[in-house]
This record gives sequence, structure tokens and C-alpha cells, in this order.
Amino acid sequence: MPKKAKKKVAKKKTAKKKVAKRSSATRAKKAQPMNAFYAQSGGVTAVINASAAGVIETARKNKTKIGKVYAGRNGIIGALTEDLIDTSKESAGAIKALRHTPSGAFGSCRYKLKSLEDNRREYERLIEVFKAHNIGYFFYNGGGDSADTCLKVSQLSESMGYPIKAVHVPKTVDNDLPITDNCPGFGSVAKYIAVSTREASFDVASMAKTSTKVFIVEVMGRHAGWIAAAGGLASTDDTPIPTIILFPEVEFDQAKFLARVDQMVKKHGYCTVVVSEGVHWPDGRFLADTGLKDAFGHAQLGGAATVIAGMIQNELKLKNHWAVADYLQRAARHIASKTDVDMAYAMGKAAVQYALKGHNSVMPTVVRTSNKPFKWKVGMAPLNKVANVEKMMPTDFITPDGYGITKKCRTYLEPLIKGEDYPPYKNGMPQYVRLKNAAVPKKLKKFEL
Amino acid sequence: MPKKAKKKVAKKKTAKKKVAKRSSATRAKKAQPMNAFYAQSGGVTAVINASAAGVIETARKNKTKIGKVYAGRNGIIGALTEDLIDTSKESAGAIKALRHTPSGAFGSCRYKLKSLEDNRREYERLIEVFKAHNIGYFFYNGGGDSADTCLKVSQLSESMGYPIKAVHVPKTVDNDLPITDNCPGFGSVAKYIAVSTREASFDVASMAKTSTKVFIVEVMGRHAGWIAAAGGLASTDDTPIPTIILFPEVEFDQAKFLARVDQMVKKHGYCTVVVSEGVHWPDGRFLADTGLKDAFGHAQLGGAATVIAGMIQNELKLKNHWAVADYLQRAARHIASKTDVDMAYAMGKAAVQYALKGHNSVMPTVVRTSNKPFKWKVGMAPLNKVANVEKMMPTDFITPDGYGITKKCRTYLEPLIKGEDYPPYKNGMPQYVRLKNAAVPKKLKKFEL
Repeated sequence: MPKKAKKKVAKKKTAKKKVAKRSSATRAKKAQPMNAFYAQSGGVTAVINASAAGVIETARKNKTKIGKVYAGRNGIIGALTEDLIDTSKESAGAIKALRHTPSGAFGSCRYKLKSLEDNRREYERLIEVFKAHNIGYFFYNGGGDSADTCLKVSQLSESMGYPIKAVHVPKTVDNDLPITDNCPGFGSVAKYIAVSTREASFDVASMAKTSTKVFIVEVMGRHAGWIAAAGGLASTDDTPIPTIILFPEVEFDQAKFLARVDQMVKKHGYCTVVVSEGVHWPDGRFLADTGLKDAFGHAQLGGAATVIAGMIQNELKLKNHWAVADYLQRAARHIASKTDVDMAYAMGKAAVQYALKGHNSVMPTVVRTSNKPFKWKVGMAPLNKVANVEKMMPTDFITPDGYGITKKCRTYLEPLIKGEDYPPYKNGMPQYVRLKNAAVPKKLKKFEL
Repeated sequence: MPKKAKKKVAKKKTAKKKVAKRSSATRAKKAQPMNAFYAQSGGVTAVINASAAGVIETARKNKTKIGKVYAGRNGIIGALTEDLIDTSKESAGAIKALRHTPSGAFGSCRYKLKSLEDNRREYERLIEVFKAHNIGYFFYNGGGDSADTCLKVSQLSESMGYPIKAVHVPKTVDNDLPITDNCPGFGSVAKYIAVSTREASFDVASMAKTSTKVFIVEVMGRHAGWIAAAGGLASTDDTPIPTIILFPEVEFDQAKFLARVDQMVKKHGYCTVVVSEGVHWPDGRFLADTGLKDAFGHAQLGGAATVIAGMIQNELKLKNHWAVADYLQRAARHIASKTDVDMAYAMGKAAVQYALKGHNSVMPTVVRTSNKPFKWKVGMAPLNKVANVEKMMPTDFITPDGYGITKKCRTYLEPLIKGEDYPPYKNGMPQYVRLKNAAVPKKLKKFEL
């Protein structure tokens, strides 16, 4: 065959191949499953990334049904600004390491969507971004405010005709989401506070003869005293510790409190005070009120411990020391509760499984089936029963004097701090992963928040 | 034989036996080794009890040379008031558990003996107590002030003719004892601060987009910035963290500091500030000065973080969060450094060995023999070179800008936080031992302090 003829044949073959490729591409596009959006919201925790690992690993195991997982950079803001992270660029090892890494690996935000009536523009933008990136699943990992955002997104099918499966992944150190037995993130803070309170109490007991007699630790919890209650776990039958807990649920009574401190120091030589940042005077003012507010309009707190320390020093003339745990408590992955880590992962995993089964507007929950031995399973709650509902401590979790936890409370709390789940260490430091967080190429025009 | 005769013989035999018993008792008394006194002094640590375990276990292994170990209840006060604890009543398991128990198991005190000229009465009392309880060894576990007390006791042979072997066991989270490479107690605080700073920095990095941009943690260290320096270990080549350290060695310059915070937040989106409680203004006033003083006459501090937080809020309008670690840092046995625990135990063990070899007025030290790999051995320092000498951070451990640690500092610090040494857990809580602390019967009249 002459050279020219050969070329022609070759060209024809190429053309045939191209056609074949194109039609297989078309078939692939037809079969291509929808992508997922995952984002972290509100205050982060020691285990929210374990939920992220649960979402991403479960999605990766279901590649025929779910495409890529795009994470929102800085929560829902990432969706609004089309700032998406392609988690498929992360290695299996990196995603696995999320399980032992505190904080929000993709960035979090404090940003609450307004109602559809008040801000239709934002919802239209969400749909625009979802369409552009073929997003059919929405996983939002947060607390009460975030559940409300997730609920609004879940209603997009109905309100704006965009098909989406929106599942909320519970997370909050405040432990104030309803229906679920507890909120991932809480168990680890509880363990940190229980362990730290025990340790510092041992310390002050050693010093009390000639020096410090009262140790005060301020813990998180704006409205619900769950974290403060965890301080009560420091004291057990075999290791009793004279502890006074100041709950946000109990109006602060200075005279009664100081009398109790005085009595405990006289009896035991020392005592420990666990004070919630949310403790308030009878008129509602927080002890720690600084006058500042956060993006949700909540008062920004901090400093209840110094107020308590001051009154113990001035009124009782007792030397004291005080600590404010602040972020240390919720970031303390090094002393995370294994139960909590397991639950956080399970919530992320279940969220994907529920969405794949076609559920929308739901939240996986922890269902406690037995206390001794502690057993739990994954359940499901409708989001409209979760959003904007704050679970307070039951009244019978606080002792009648207002300063301690009841046996019932202890039975509830104890399993949640059980088990250790240490991160790997290198040269004495925990090896927390930082992801590449590669951006998904943008397809849309810029959007102003 | 008639009954009466029988009785007489029996009596004679008993008498013989009694004589035999008495002389064996006399022999035993002659051979009976002298007892030891051990006490804990000053601020306690996560590993001071590991030193106690080293002392007691080593003494128990040398029963032919050293009698009982009597611990002072609340430090040297226990010696002065004849309030001694008989550690021989504690099981081997309980003493072993001291190794993983934070705080001072026998109680500590802040009480410094005056000079012999100023308070001869106290020294005479010590000799009276030592004689009454056959005490020939004195082990004092503390920092600089305690080394001074131990030095004074070690001079009793010379000054008052009472034979005693006094050995100081180094301990202080402040890491400010001279000669020794480091002070047991410091490595564990350093690890706690390094780990906590890394964790909280991950947290604030997650929040920075819409919320907190600066995290501030206040750490201990009145005059020396060793603990603050440990905050610098949070950031490594593979996990860089924008950190500003405020050392007590560097005069605080508000304008320069705020400019640095502003620059870091602009560049990285967030930053972390580690502030020593001892940071002071150019005129010498502590940022945190409360006007109160402790029993040693030191200013009682606490609150530098709130001052820093206030200026960042007011001048830069940057949202921030702050924590004060206080006792949590030095009691945090749950995240103790294995290197530190090993060294603390070794110091207690060596103290007994040195005393048995006839040494007096010395302190075991850590001698670093190699950095890579890290190797160390036990050395010995004369107490008169230790007492009242405060080791400051070398100038070349702080970066020229005053806000960071140099490579040299990192090389020094890194090995000290290496290794984890977790306590045992039960139901999610660390199992720290509480001793029986049975009192040795008193033989003397009461002594007023």
C-alpha cells in the first residue's frame, strides 16, 4: 500500500475510535452519580473530623451511587462562594487521619442562612452552585443553628424544585441537640474536663496546707450545664473530691455559694469549683458578661472564673488559683473519649447511608439501648424536630442544693467518656493531619455574601 | 516431778528465753539502719510522685542499709511538727502507682527555713525529731527555695553536730535549677503546653474565616520563659503554626506586639499567642499584677491573657479567645512526657544511692550526653552551687525579634517532651493512687510553727 493510502486508513480508524470514545463518554455521563457537599459549621470539636472521615470513607465505598465529596471551605460560605474543596484529591491515609485530628479540617463558619422569605438570593445561589457541580447530597456537620440551615436546604426540593438529599450530622460540645442521646464532640470535652478537674484537684489538695485552698476551672456551655456536669465525674466513690459545680441552670447565689466553699475548705482543707461560662445572676446577667456578641448574636463570654476567684479571695480570704479551659477543652484530641470518636464516625457514616437510601431532612442520632453494659445504636430523627430546639439538662440531673450531679446524671455521663483513643505521636507531638484542600475549579460568577 | 517443781523449771526456761530475746533485740537495735525522711516542697508537678516512688522503692531494696522512709506530711512542716507518714504501711502496688499519679502524695508546702542565725529554734527542733525517729537521711524534693532548705539541713552535721545525709531531689516546672540539664516536672508541662497549643491553634485556624482570629494561652513561669518556650514546639516544619511567644525575659512592647499580631492575621488568617504569666512592662510591672503575694513573697500572678485579649480586641478589633492553663498544665499527668517521668524516677533513685554511698549536701542531676539520639545519664551537683541560683533562658534561645524560639532552643526542648507514659484508666478516668498516709506515732511535745 502507498503511504497516502495508509494514512487515510489510519485516519478512518482514528475517527471511528473518536466516535466510540464519545459515546462511551456520553454513557459515563449518564451513569455518573451525583456529587456530595459536606461542610462543618459552628464551633469545632475534637472529633468533628472523625465525622468527616465517616462521610468521605463511606462515600468512597459507594462510588457507583455517589460521586465526589466536595467540602465547603469554611462551611456553608464555601457553598455560597463556590469555594469547594475536592476531597477526592486526598489520599486514603489522609482521610483516615482525620479520625484522630481535632478542629475542622475544611474550615468552619458561624453563618446562619436567613429564611427563604428574607433572603431568597442565597438559596438561589446555593442551587446555582449545586447544579454547576452536580451536587445531589448535602451533609452539614454542626449543632442547633446548623441543623436549621440544613433543614432549610432540605426544603429546596419543595420550595425551589431542586432535588437534594440533605442530612444533618450532629456535632456540638454543648450536647444540646434534642432526640439524640448525646452529641459527638461532647464526650471528649466531658472527658477532658473530668480528667483535668481530677488532676487539678489532686494538685490543690497537695498545696492546701500552706497555700492554695480553692481551685476554680471555667468551662464552656452557654445555656446548658452539660460540660460543667462533666466536672462532677472527677469525683468517684473510690476517689472522692470536694467539688462545687456552678450550672447555668441554677441562678447564682453568692452568699450560699461562699458559705459552701467555706464549709468544704473547713472540712476537707480544700475544694474545687467548676464554673460554667453561662452562670448568671438572678437578674439574668452572666457573671462573665463582657458586652461583646458573636456572629449569631450570642453574648461572647469568658471570665466567670475570675469573678468567682475574686469573691473567694475578698470575702473568704482564701488563696485560690483559677484556670479557663476555653478552646483547650474542645480541641483536646489527645484525651478524646473513644466512645465519642466512634459515635462521631458512625454519625458521618450513617448520614451517607441514609442519603443513599433516599432520606432527606433527617439527622442520624445516637440511641442508647442499655446503660450496663453501655450499648448504643444509630437512629434517625426528622430535622424539623431538631432545628432550633435546645436540650437542657433534666432537672433531676442536678442535686437539690444546685451544686452537684445526681446518680442519674452520672449514669448518663459515664459511658460517654469511656475509652481512650490516642492519636499517633512523633517526637513527642501528636501527628494531626493537614489536608491539601485543593479547590474545585470555579464555574460561576463571583457571589458577594 | 511434782507440779510445783515443774512450774519452777518452766519459769527458769522462760527467764532464759527472755534474756535471749532481749539480747537479740539489742543486737537488732545495734544493726538497725537509720530511717529516712522524704518530703515534697513547693508547687507540685505531674511527676514529683515518680521521684517519691524512686526514693521509696530504692530504699526498700536496701533494707539492710536504710530503715523506713518517713514522709513529711506537707513537706518540711511535717518534720517540724513531727507529723510523719510511715510509708512502710503502703503496699508495693501503691508505691508503684505513685509513678503515674500527679500532685504531691504526702502534701507539699511553701515554707522556707530561715537562716540558722535567724531561727535556731527550728533547726533544734528538726534535730529533736530526727533523733526521736532515728532519721539519718533527708531527701527533699523541690525547686530552688527547697534546695536552700535542704542545704541548711545538710549543714546540721557541721553546725549542730547531728549526723545527716541530706540530698536534694530536683523538681520544678519552672526548669530554673542550675547545673542539671533540666528539672523533672518541666518536660511534662512542656509537653502539655506544646500539645495544647497545637490543638487550640488547629481550632482557631478552623474558626478564623468568620469568627475567632487570635487564640491566647497564658502559661506559668514567673521569671524564666521555659514553659512559654515550649509553646514554640507546637509549630514544626511539617505542621507550621503562626505563633507569637511573649517571654518574661523580653520587655513587653505593646505597639510592636500588636503590629506583629496584625501582620500574622493578615498573612495566615489567624495566629496563636503564648503568653507567660511573668511578662512585664518596661517599668517591671507584670501585665497580670494582682497585688497579691504568696508565702515566699512572690507576686501572685494570673491574668496576662485577659490583658492581651483586651488590647487585641480594642486596638485591632480582632475577635479572640483566651485560656489560662494554670494548675491544669502542671497536673496533667494524662499527657506526661515519658522522658520526664523516667528522669523524675531516676532522680529519686539516685538520691538514695548517693546518700547510701555517704554523700551529703548534693543533688542528683540530669546530664545530657547526646542530642541525636538523645542520651542522658545521672550526675551530681553540690547543693551550695544549686541553692538560690535561678537558671534563666539563654539569650540565644529566643529569636532576635523576641517572639520565638531558636533552633538551639528547639534542640534543647524537643527530647524533653518525647514519649508518652499514659496512666491506667478505669471507666474513662485515670486511676491515680491515694495513699493511706498512716501517721507515725508522735514521741515529742507539740511544736508551734
